[in-house]
Amino acid sequence: MSDKRFDELDGDTLREECGVFGILGHPDASALTALGLHALQHRGQEAAGIVSFDGRQFHSERQLGLVGDHYTNPATLARVPGHMAMGHVRYSTTGETILRNVQPLFAELEVGGIAIGHNGNFTNGLTLRRQLIAQGAICQSTSDSEVVLHLIARSRKTASSDRFVDALSHLEGAFSLVALTRTKLIGARDPNGIRPLVLGELDGKPIFASETCALDIIGAKFVRDVENGEVVICEMQPDGSITIDSLKPFPPRPERLCLFEYVYFARPDSVVGGRGVYGVRKAMGANLAREAPVDADVVVPVPDGGTPAAIGYAQESGIPFELGIIRNHYVGRTFIEPTQSIRAFGVKLKHSANRAEIAGKRVILIDDSIVRGTTTVKVVQMMREAGAREVHIRVASPMIKHADYYGIDTPDPEKLLANQYRTLDEMCRFIGADSLQFLSIDGLYQAVGGVARNPLRPQFTDHCFTGDYPTPLTDLSGRSKSEPKTLSLMREAV
Amino acid sequence: MSDKRFDELDGDTLREECGVFGILGHPDASALTALGLHALQHRGQEAAGIVSFDGRQFHSERQLGLVGDHYTNPATLARVPGHMAMGHVRYSTTGETILRNVQPLFAELEVGGIAIGHNGNFTNGLTLRRQLIAQGAICQSTSDSEVVLHLIARSRKTASSDRFVDALSHLEGAFSLVALTRTKLIGARDPNGIRPLVLGELDGKPIFASETCALDIIGAKFVRDVENGEVVICEMQPDGSITIDSLKPFPPRPERLCLFEYVYFARPDSVVGGRGVYGVRKAMGANLAREAPVDADVVVPVPDGGTPAAIGYAQESGIPFELGIIRNHYVGRTFIEPTQSIRAFGVKLKHSANRAEIAGKRVILIDDSIVRGTTTVKVVQMMREAGAREVHIRVASPMIKHADYYGIDTPDPEKLLANQYRTLDEMCRFIGADSLQFLSIDGLYQAVGGVARNPLRPQFTDHCFTGDYPTPLTDLSGRSKSEPKTLSLMREAV
Amino acid sequence: MSDKRFDELDGDTLREECGVFGILGHPDASALTALGLHALQHRGQEAAGIVSFDGRQFHSERQLGLVGDHYTNPATLARVPGHMAMGHVRYSTTGETILRNVQPLFAELEVGGIAIGHNGNFTNGLTLRRQLIAQGAICQSTSDSEVVLHLIARSRKTASSDRFVDALSHLEGAFSLVALTRTKLIGARDPNGIRPLVLGELDGKPIFASETCALDIIGAKFVRDVENGEVVICEMQPDGSITIDSLKPFPPRPERLCLFEYVYFARPDSVVGGRGVYGVRKAMGANLAREAPVDADVVVPVPDGGTPAAIGYAQESGIPFELGIIRNHYVGRTFIEPTQSIRAFGVKLKHSANRAEIAGKRVILIDDSIVRGTTTVKVVQMMREAGAREVHIRVASPMIKHADYYGIDTPDPEKLLANQYRTLDEMCRFIGADSLQFLSIDGLYQAVGGVARNPLRPQFTDHCFTGDYPTPLTDLSGRSKSEPKTLSLMREAV
Amino acid sequence: MSDKRFDELDGDTLREECGVFGILGHPDASALTALGLHALQHRGQEAAGIVSFDGRQFHSERQLGLVGDHYTNPATLARVPGHMAMGHVRYSTTGETILRNVQPLFAELEVGGIAIGHNGNFTNGLTLRRQLIAQGAICQSTSDSEVVLHLIARSRKTASSDRFVDALSHLEGAFSLVALTRTKLIGARDPNGIRPLVLGELDGKPIFASETCALDIIGAKFVRDVENGEVVICEMQPDGSITIDSLKPFPPRPERLCLFEYVYFARPDSVVGGRGVYGVRKAMGANLAREAPVDADVVVPVPDGGTPAAIGYAQESGIPFELGIIRNHYVGRTFIEPTQSIRAFGVKLKHSANRAEIAGKRVILIDDSIVRGTTTVKVVQMMREAGAREVHIRVASPMIKHADYYGIDTPDPEKLLANQYRTLDEMCRFIGADSLQFLSIDGLYQAVGGVARNPLRPQFTDHCFTGDYPTPLTDLSGRSKSEPKTLSLMREAV
Repeated sequence: MSDKRFDELDGDTLREECGVFGILGHPDASALTALGLHALQHRGQEAAGIVSFDGRQFHSERQLGLVGDHYTNPATLARVPGHMAMGHVRYSTTGETILRNVQPLFAELEVGGIAIGHNGNFTNGLTLRRQLIAQGAICQSTSDSEVVLHLIARSRKTASSDRFVDALSHLEGAFSLVALTRTKLIGARDPNGIRPLVLGELDGKPIFASETCALDIIGAKFVRDVENGEVVICEMQPDGSITIDSLKPFPPRPERLCLFEYVYFARPDSVVGGRGVYGVRKAMGANLAREAPVDADVVVPVPDGGTPAAIGYAQESGIPFELGIIRNHYVGRTFIEPTQSIRAFGVKLKHSANRAEIAGKRVILIDDSIVRGTTTVKVVQMMREAGAREVHIRVASPMIKHADYYGIDTPDPEKLLANQYRTLDEMCRFIGADSLQFLSIDGLYQAVGGVARNPLRPQFTDHCFTGDYPTPLTDLSGRSKSEPKTLSLMREAV
Repeated sequence: MSDKRFDELDGDTLREECGVFGILGHPDASALTALGLHALQHRGQEAAGIVSFDGRQFHSERQLGLVGDHYTNPATLARVPGHMAMGHVRYSTTGETILRNVQPLFAELEVGGIAIGHNGNFTNGLTLRRQLIAQGAICQSTSDSEVVLHLIARSRKTASSDRFVDALSHLEGAFSLVALTRTKLIGARDPNGIRPLVLGELDGKPIFASETCALDIIGAKFVRDVENGEVVICEMQPDGSITIDSLKPFPPRPERLCLFEYVYFARPDSVVGGRGVYGVRKAMGANLAREAPVDADVVVPVPDGGTPAAIGYAQESGIPFELGIIRNHYVGRTFIEPTQSIRAFGVKLKHSANRAEIAGKRVILIDDSIVRGTTTVKVVQMMREAGAREVHIRVASPMIKHADYYGIDTPDPEKLLANQYRTLDEMCRFIGADSLQFLSIDGLYQAVGGVARNPLRPQFTDHCFTGDYPTPLTDLSGRSKSEPKTLSLMREAV
Repeated sequence: MSDKRFDELDGDTLREECGVFGILGHPDASALTALGLHALQHRGQEAAGIVSFDGRQFHSERQLGLVGDHYTNPATLARVPGHMAMGHVRYSTTGETILRNVQPLFAELEVGGIAIGHNGNFTNGLTLRRQLIAQGAICQSTSDSEVVLHLIARSRKTASSDRFVDALSHLEGAFSLVALTRTKLIGARDPNGIRPLVLGELDGKPIFASETCALDIIGAKFVRDVENGEVVICEMQPDGSITIDSLKPFPPRPERLCLFEYVYFARPDSVVGGRGVYGVRKAMGANLAREAPVDADVVVPVPDGGTPAAIGYAQESGIPFELGIIRNHYVGRTFIEPTQSIRAFGVKLKHSANRAEIAGKRVILIDDSIVRGTTTVKVVQMMREAGAREVHIRVASPMIKHADYYGIDTPDPEKLLANQYRTLDEMCRFIGADSLQFLSIDGLYQAVGGVARNPLRPQFTDHCFTGDYPTPLTDLSGRSKSEPKTLSLMREAV
Repeated sequence: MSDKRFDELDGDTLREECGVFGILGHPDASALTALGLHALQHRGQEAAGIVSFDGRQFHSERQLGLVGDHYTNPATLARVPGHMAMGHVRYSTTGETILRNVQPLFAELEVGGIAIGHNGNFTNGLTLRRQLIAQGAICQSTSDSEVVLHLIARSRKTASSDRFVDALSHLEGAFSLVALTRTKLIGARDPNGIRPLVLGELDGKPIFASETCALDIIGAKFVRDVENGEVVICEMQPDGSITIDSLKPFPPRPERLCLFEYVYFARPDSVVGGRGVYGVRKAMGANLAREAPVDADVVVPVPDGGTPAAIGYAQESGIPFELGIIRNHYVGRTFIEPTQSIRAFGVKLKHSANRAEIAGKRVILIDDSIVRGTTTVKVVQMMREAGAREVHIRVASPMIKHADYYGIDTPDPEKLLANQYRTLDEMCRFIGADSLQFLSIDGLYQAVGGVARNPLRPQFTDHCFTGDYPTPLTDLSGRSKSEPKTLSLMREAV
């Protein structure tokens, strides 16, 4: 349900950079990894990679495009044989999408190879990169995640897992990392646990995955969340048995999972932090109905992100839920660069008004979030053209006012709707709606965790709404476009 | 909402072969045709073609794949210039999908060229083809539709439109045809009006399209349905004005639009035969709730076809509507031939249970139709695995028992669920559900037309449910695989 | 040696349109056909097709590009199974190169299918095409050769071979045709025998091929030339034996093989009309040395066409033969559309002067023919830049003054060098050489046939040199670009 | 003339790994580099890359395939803008051909980026690689050349050119290297000068290229050879002027250019070490005629490598030179993996006997070298089948007995013909010829340098013939397949 990211209306969505998956000790390791990545495809559609180890050698496949474009070809999977594998889906936040940036990244160490996959963003990535280059390191990718490899390679520790932990201790920001060595599969989450990571199990073999939906697709069991600040090391012993150790090598910090996982990113059928995402979204919609009721005829979701909240709003308000916007699933590959005459039709390529259900009605449109508002303008206009008598926008999350530095690709803050207009009324006029309301921050906290925000010690990270960042921002802005004077000197096409 | 056809679960869906679109007198004729075909993509995803005329020359582009794969490339559209264009999307029922079968088909006549696009199927197509070959015609495609071209070429009439009408008089079965000559755009519907065709208008320029959603996408106005047995001839006059004539050249017959357009094929936002399809489907769901109520906790649609009926069922029954099955939109191109280990996961590649909403619940699953039942078995199993306490199947159309010969690709009748088991109980056991009910034929008629079926003169064609075919079946079975002894001798790869 | 046609210097070469190959009764029919076509690749590089018959069904593969690009893929060959196959390589003279023009062409007849491949050009092709369209035929290709199919389909004869002969009787011009029916492989040559065709044999199975080099590659034996005006019908009998019949159905005419086969087209290792082509070309060079001697230091061929004549010239004159121009074989696929800055380097992409062998020398450059002279200008300039003291051009054929209408793609006659300048001196100045001489027509006849031209009854056709056309030119100019007012209305991209 | 490497008869040719080209200060730097690489294509056909610097940023294009497949596309060249560029063509000796191995290699250093292209092979490459990994370096490619980058990055020097020289001081073996920094273009040759490198000039702008043919194609002037052990640094000054400095930073050693450049690798029109390659090869043929005369009718080259020597042999012996083997230039892309039935035809796909010139003749076949002899066997058989009365093999270089470690991809020494048989007679019997003779080592030296080999201080390196290696072989065998226990752990597909 969460493929709004596939939308050509790129300007008004947020993007997460990655999903990770790994499995140790299973004969179908790569095929299972491909399936897991397919279930995590909503977390990154630009590229996907798999690294496996077959007892002798590491193997790698990295491809631009969807998991299903490549990894269901038996010939492709045959190139990543072995009983251990990990994979990564990517939507690039830093680094252009070129093949050498596609993860997992790999390094040969004196003690053997190591592959890593990263979900999140380091807030001191550029700083570390500069230091490493000054010390003679050669960065082959333009991806922030490569610094982890160099920190591992330069660690004075001996064992690859010790080197991995040593490397993590230099990192600030958000990371859910999976690593694969010749004998180990390792999962790690940053001290705040900003991005999710779960431990699962299939036939007694351990699995790490960004979300539980990647366990469900292969019939694996959910074991538990990897905790904030935890490093879980699964190791294959010489006798074939697997041991699982847990380390907490970092100074303890409170968990602050990113609320956007609930608002937008996670798949509705995933269970994140112990909470079913679909149910949380319905609760957001129900809270929104309580906070911002309106007398109307139909509740219409902006597909597909707004659907669960719209169902919640409809059930709470008693106003009928209707599919007032129909989505065209056959978009094809090149609609991303349409002709001028076609571009003018804009939103209609993907969505069309269900005119017979809209004409003459007072419509409540439910969306999960508003970033710049450009899509919302078009959707309101589409409703008007279809004959809606009134159009009321209800947004199932608070206003977005601040940039993210933890792996979400937010636009420049001044382009955010909430920063372009001072008042809700001004925003509503820009949008062209009859009324506009956002869910309150407490309404969001209650939908997710059952209680309001604790301002002294917030239970989640909500920096995009509040500006309260859970970590230092050493690089200040890792995605600044004016910055790379000495870095990213190289531009390469694949 | 209607892209179930894109599903890898091919065995249990029906397929329509085509959608057509044409526009006369507009400077952006090809771009508008591409947009119209995009909106009609649900009617055929295997290939798409556009033919244009620029005042001097006809131009043609025919491509395998989706409209959005090719026709949004400005270079491609530039190859079909001119102020008149028509196009076709295809899902092959007869003729393998090879490039020379992709429509529009074109012929040079002594009086000038003519292009045609066909939605439907001739029940005397093979018979005509045999006669033509005996007379020295060379059939270049393996498509049934090519016989129309030969009939036009051999007509003794002079004007291309007279030849077109002359050719139509030989045809039996279902056809909604659009034709383009050097000065005319022609739309025609068979005497029973089995397949839909509408007349629209943009900036005063006439348009033919299979469904109204193709008008909506370009902001065109709906004028009226082309009537059953009607030939509408739009002609550009030397002064640039456009005249529109209507002929009724065939012996009059009652209109009998195919009910499957309402049950499954048409897009929910289209208005077919004056009725909004989404509303009709909700009414089917509501009638189903009345005919086959069940005490349960949630109403869950089988996405995406079952969603409108599920909303109708939920509203009528008062049982909450929930998204209990989540769809993965990122299927990629090659999941059509997955590895054995991946194929085992079957339905999960496209759909997954929303476990938190299903576990412990009594579930009513709503689907639009059941063909062979193979998908239904998997969906029920998915619900059971997710912890459903009870699973009740409610189908928003009657049992399918008979083959279609009018352009719908039905499996061999003995493979239909309704023919494999004698009783509803046996079917239910095969499906693995706790109960199974189908909408009655009268319930369907009432949802569509407001009154029950008139057995003496049925208002629609319902042959797949009843075996009551509206035309002779001269070829008996145009898609019989054992037949082509002297025909279709040629197999060609593109 | 004869791949000058692959050259980017397109303007100054002639092109033949086709090569044909067929084999009856061999289990590896398609693979052998692919090999035969590969040996005939110099006769057409734009497209290649194979049609086979497996006892039940015809199969076809038609591809743009080289034989070696497609037909060495086992999967491709597997799509043309059976013990009978024929194939065609094409360089388009009439009809754009689109997939539906690629031969063999195929038609289903009442009596079964027939495939044909054509080398040559009909001088009444457009006239026949117009007549056929007036009678209701639908021409799907823009290729002249398609008229043969329609004439076969419309013949009142019963047997497919009778229909084939009947169709041929309507044709004027040049044709070496191979046809394949369900039981027969047929080879036919026009009454003048303008284009070559040989009968060969492998393991007792008959083969037709344009040149003997296609027999050599598969180890087949040369049996004899198909004679001018002869139709050779090889038929597989029910008992598996093969009968071979010869018909002479046309009014007898003297054989006049096209001299350009010797000058330029045929591969040097082929035996055409009983004469080894390499030896004939050496003899042309030797005659040229006698007719047009020059005091110089080195004899340098313009590669690769001029090499045999240069060897002959050097041996006759006693002046050393040297490779003064080196050819770059790695041209790649896209050098056909180079950038402006690269295009300026022109001829150098393919050829470079062997400076150390040229500097300070008096050079005799030997080329096989001069069409427009544009390449010759560049080659002379290249020799000058490399320091040649003198550059003398000797051309191993007479001046080209007239268009061909028999399958050779000649430029407009007014663009021919021999028509742009009145005297040899003017041509020489345009070329920039110190001297320029062409072989005389009698020198050419003597090199090929041992005796001078018989003006009353020329032993060959030499129309490009003399304007003496061996057949009527009914269409006048079959390739005229201004003509197609009612024909070729359709432009299609593949 | 030297594209024998393109041959499918891979087993019996040697391959050089690379060609390099660089230009500083020219507005068309990339287009000129593409042309230069095209002229050097015979030195490597697997991949080609270009790196440019536009004053702000480095740009890179790296592609598998021929230069002409990619770099003549204006869009591709537009991706490598700027006034400085360098490029590389590659035939992989170490490292599989994967995109990240394609050169130029690039690294961002603290002082700015540097790109390098390498022709040759380090005999201590694996040793250095192991040391670097132990120090925490991450090797991203499997190419030996990457160690240079790491040595540069870890150098304690400041300026990039000082770092480059510092890095070179660690290297053993053969290298002709070109490097590009933000202001400099550097060319360097190893102390023995094993591989060639020349300095040229166009419009006053310096150029480095592996051979002079890369200068000729763009009309550039040859300035001089880069000397053995020399580092030439061209630097763009802030005022736009260019300075050229020469360093000799290594302990002096005698020049020993590899003789195989003359025997086989260099293009015949190149001038290597001051000697025209075509003339040297003719002299080899002439010496061979003196050393190993034979009474015969024709001298036939094995195309294309044997042609100049055959001309020399013919001129010296007075026996006529004839093209007895005809080459088919249209091989296409997939003949590299032909079907079994096609593979059986082996050598005939590329070459065919010119039967009319061979039948009944005593033939002297001239080849440039024999590696394993497998091709020679086939060529002799082809001559016999064409009716040759006698077949005498004369090889224009000595017997190859030893592996190369300097960038030539030699087979395992035990597979070399000269090591499989003890005597010339045994070899001749294996080959199936009537006689077999090789050029003597002194005959080779005299053809190249005018005097016999000086055994105390050989003027060239001739290790493949003599086993006398000019440098230590620290890694012993850099291409050993059994070695990579801890290295090259990663296998990646592109």
